[in-house]
Amino acid sequence: MGEAGLIELIRRTVRTRGRLKVGIGDDACVLKDGTVLTTDAYAEGVHFDLAYMSFRQVGERCACAALSDVVAMGAEPEVLLVSLCLRHDVRDSDIRALYRGIEAVCRRFGCEVGGGDIIAADRFVLALSASGRTSRPLLRSAARPGDFVYLTGFAGLAETGRLVLKHRLRREGFAAAVRRHLRPLPRLDVASSIGSAIHALIDTSDGLATDAAHIAEMSRVRLELDASAIPVAPATRRLCRKLRLDSTRFVLTAGEDYELLLTSPRVLPRCVGGSMLTCIGQVRRGSGLYAVSNGVTGQVRERGYDHLA
Amino acid sequence: MGEAGLIELIRRTVRTRGRLKVGIGDDACVLKDGTVLTTDAYAEGVHFDLAYMSFRQVGERCACAALSDVVAMGAEPEVLLVSLCLRHDVRDSDIRALYRGIEAVCRRFGCEVGGGDIIAADRFVLALSASGRTSRPLLRSAARPGDFVYLTGFAGLAETGRLVLKHRLRREGFAAAVRRHLRPLPRLDVASSIGSAIHALIDTSDGLATDAAHIAEMSRVRLELDASAIPVAPATRRLCRKLRLDSTRFVLTAGEDYELLLTSPRVLPRCVGGSMLTCIGQVRRGSGLYAVSNGVTGQVRERGYDHLA
Repeated sequence: MGEAGLIELIRRTVRTRGRLKVGIGDDACVLKDGTVLTTDAYAEGVHFDLAYMSFRQVGERCACAALSDVVAMGAEPEVLLVSLCLRHDVRDSDIRALYRGIEAVCRRFGCEVGGGDIIAADRFVLALSASGRTSRPLLRSAARPGDFVYLTGFAGLAETGRLVLKHRLRREGFAAAVRRHLRPLPRLDVASSIGSAIHALIDTSDGLATDAAHIAEMSRVRLELDASAIPVAPATRRLCRKLRLDSTRFVLTAGEDYELLLTSPRVLPRCVGGSMLTCIGQVRRGSGLYAVSNGVTGQVRERGYDHLA
Repeated sequence: MGEAGLIELIRRTVRTRGRLKVGIGDDACVLKDGTVLTTDAYAEGVHFDLAYMSFRQVGERCACAALSDVVAMGAEPEVLLVSLCLRHDVRDSDIRALYRGIEAVCRRFGCEVGGGDIIAADRFVLALSASGRTSRPLLRSAARPGDFVYLTGFAGLAETGRLVLKHRLRREGFAAAVRRHLRPLPRLDVASSIGSAIHALIDTSDGLATDAAHIAEMSRVRLELDASAIPVAPATRRLCRKLRLDSTRFVLTAGEDYELLLTSPRVLPRCVGGSMLTCIGQVRRGSGLYAVSNGVTGQVRERGYDHLA
């Protein structure tokens, strides 16, 4: 039934009890006191691949992804919890390397590993939970007609890096792409520098089209992307040519960039805290996700990969 | 290297950054503001068995176990997060049943499902994270010489129930044991009623001996259990006879009762909030875990099953 259907099923099955300011359906939940909580699971072969990643890199990548959900609520990460399902053939040095990767990312954000659990299993799975804090959560549902739509970094850069690693292509010219796949550091600087100017906020984990559609749906607005304005790295264009992929489709559907997609009523600077910030569209009255390309406006039906569909 | 070795390895690999009042090594971590956070993973075939459990029962059991860690810090559960790894053959109705079980336990504790994640995998794994709040965390390290050692409920009752289910024995006379395995409701009433009288607190998830040894080690004291005082249900004695198990060894090593093991300087009532509370020993100066049996004091070397060893 796909991820959206499952979330709806779960939402109908559980009840609210006044503990939460923001419940199921955003990047994370928010308690009444501003505590932000989120959890995500990452499985070998699905979210990371030990064929071309070290345990340290797995730790870094998963920690970045977990903290990204906290940042995408406009919060500062505080604590990370680590549940590990380990295969029996894993070595102590692998676990140490994994935690070194997690720790390196935590250090960068002043965050702390608060605990965890380790169980034996036949597949390597991590479930990371993160907490943070914010006095003003930035929600998917807060876009307003007239807002500009902004994206940090490049769309599809992480997926470019993943494909370079997966197909074992020469890395020349793809260093930044590979880095974005392996270590997708959340843009905390951006969220904290311009937080007061942000209306809606989400991280691009499911793919630009899916995540933009989330904002449109939850804010009950129409999002119009300017296809030519979407920032695409030269490396991504080169890869798309090489693998004969349609680059527009690629950047709309490629997931796990962990960039910030936000709306703001203000014209924002093109660079914030060292991160590129690009205006890629506008919010209008209505509903749905649209793209303007060569003067033609069309509904965007592309969605990121839904591995539950 | 076993669970204890792994925890030590992790503790040496990560750094503290002033976010936490209580870090790695207790039932849960505690942030400076009293927020309690914990995570645990549960795998099919290890922590639950779909051969004799429904999805609803899996949800109930895992939710109880997750909230138990919050209660074991002297905190009230507030939010539960659910990371699911689902096999492809799982049905929507299974997921609904699972969440109904989780929800039933949450309702009982005024707790709320705040979100989660679902990924596809080849084994059914749940990672549950829970948050709670307390102004005075109750730690494993707070036992003092002269304290009495108390245990809620019966030791080994949940494992009795598990074996009855696993071996498909007739359930007559084992209803309470089976219930304790399937729905090990945390003893929140006990922790909140007598919290001010509690020094050290832990839940018995790893087995009475292992968990008592945790208190002894972290409090730097000697724990002396009175073997004859340990509350053993008639059903457990009957099962041990039937399966030819040594009942003393059984109750010391059987895990996942999720009862509360606590120390207190006071003589406590034998029943608190409907739960049985039994004095099973004393805290003394020194170190290690000892048991007095028929007037003879011996060191307890039994430990619960360590599935990472």
